[in-house]
Parts: sequence; structure tokens; C-alpha cells
Amino acid sequence: MSGYKRILLAVDLAEESSIVGERAVQLARLFGAQLHVVHVVEPLSLVYGGDIPMDMSSVQDQIQEQAQSSLDDFCEAAGVPDAHRYLIFGRPETEIHRIAMSADIDAIVVGSHGRQGLALLLGSTANGVLHGASCDVLAVRVGPGAHQSAD
Amino acid sequence: MSGYKRILLAVDLAEESSIVGERAVQLARLFGAQLHVVHVVEPLSLVYGGDIPMDMSSVQDQIQEQAQSSLDDFCEAAGVPDAHRYLIFGRPETEIHRIAMSADIDAIVVGSHGRQGLALLLGSTANGVLHGASCDVLAVRVGPGAHQSAD
Repeated sequence: MSGYKRILLAVDLAEESSIVGERAVQLARLFGAQLHVVHVVEPLSLVYGGDIPMDMSSVQDQIQEQAQSSLDDFCEAAGVPDAHRYLIFGRPETEIHRIAMSADIDAIVVGSHGRQGLALLLGSTANGVLHGASCDVLAVRVGPGAHQSAD
Repeated sequence: MSGYKRILLAVDLAEESSIVGERAVQLARLFGAQLHVVHVVEPLSLVYGGDIPMDMSSVQDQIQEQAQSSLDDFCEAAGVPDAHRYLIFGRPETEIHRIAMSADIDAIVVGSHGRQGLALLLGSTANGVLHGASCDVLAVRVGPGAHQSAD
């Protein structure tokens, strides 16, 4: 059985996503695989169903900028080239699957913290990614209840 | 970040489960992790909600024997010692989580073929395992629609 050749890490802005990122980097190194990184920013209008009482465009811009900055910081540190970084605006599951197909990805790494806090606005869930993925999915458990190995 | 130390492979009798098994063996080798293997046989009465028109106990026995045999065959080939093999009768998700807790597992590997054919009777689904797992879960895509890397 051949190993993974192209791994796609799906990140969000949640603090715990560094654990997910570290795991993806580790996996890519062990397999000698290319690492691709996607951050999908969900439109606030999608999250709230259009029921937004004020103009949220500046908030949306800030989210987008913060996402770009954290994506770049992570990718610089992990040695992921520009061509393998994707900042996308849309529905996380849909966009992650689209990138996975177009970049011929064989494993997606995603945090499985559910939707809490900021992740509720921005993140994608492991479950959504698992449904309809045509490749392997590693759900990295983060947040409360995450297992810590005893040794 | 430390690597996986104890990986739990959840198998069923489906033909595609060899792909899942190979991936788990590969992962355990790369991480230098112990490999544990569980096969959960679901009671037919559970699957059919007690609505079984005839005595299915001999069928259940055959399923159990076949499961034991395929579990042993796989584990012999993969070098998994007796102490790390689990043939369990019950609800897959519940039992997989129980073993994961008691054996201090840090990653579960499971096929994500959904419930089809014999797997409908016997297997567990990646989704069920993902829910409530306190460790990472690798869902290995098998069956129709599974991605084959281009090179």
C-alpha cells in the first residue's frame, strides 16, 4: 500500500487548531507527503441566514484579514509554499471537498472540536468533512475531553 | 508533539476492510506505535430489533466464528499479539470507545464505507465512532467513490 502523497489540512482560527496543524505536519513528514493548507471563511450572512441587523462587512473583512495572517504564519513556519495555501470564502465542507478533488488529496486532516465559540462562525466540523469526502479523513480531537496519552 | 503510541484498528468482515487494515499497519509502523485490533460483532437481535422470524443463533455462531478467524488471520500477518486482539459482542461504537479508553488509545482507525451489505449487520461506521471518541479518528475511505491517487 502506498502512503499518503498529498495531505490537506483544514484549519480555522480556533486556538486549538495548532494541535491539528502539528498533527498534520507530523503526518506529512512521516509519509513524505506534500502538505496543503486550506482555511475556509464562512460568509456571516450564511451563518446567520441573512438575519443580520447591521452592516457586518467590516467585521467580515477583519475576519478575512485575520484568517490570511494566521494562514500565512502557520504556512511559513511549516514550510508550506504559496501554491499550497488556500484562503477561501464559502461553505467549509463544500470548499474543502473541492480543494481535495482539484489538488488530488489523499487525506484530509481536520479538528473535531465541534462548533464552539469562534469556530461556530468560522470553522468546519469533522463530521461535515467526513460526509462526502472521497479520501481518508483524520479527525484530530481537540478541546475538552481530548485524550492525553498516559506516557 | 509526540506521535501516536497506541493505535486501535476497528475491523469488520467486509472485503474492503483489508485496505483499512493496511493503512492502520502502515500508520503504526511510521509512528512506532502499538497496534490493537478490535472486531465488534453486533447481536442480530439488536440489528433487527428482535423482529427475527426464526432461530438465528446458528447464524450468529457462524458470524462469530468467522469474525474470530479473520481477526486472527489479520493479526498473525500483522504481528499483533493476542493481548491486543479484541473480539467483542455488542454495539460497535460503544465497544470501540470502551476499548479505546481502557487501552489508552490515541488514534482509532476505521473504515468509512457506511453500512452496506454484510457491513450493515456487522460493521461500525466512521461517523458513529467519531461521535464521542476522546481520541483522534482516522476514517479510511473504502468502496465506491474512494479516491485513488493519480501517481
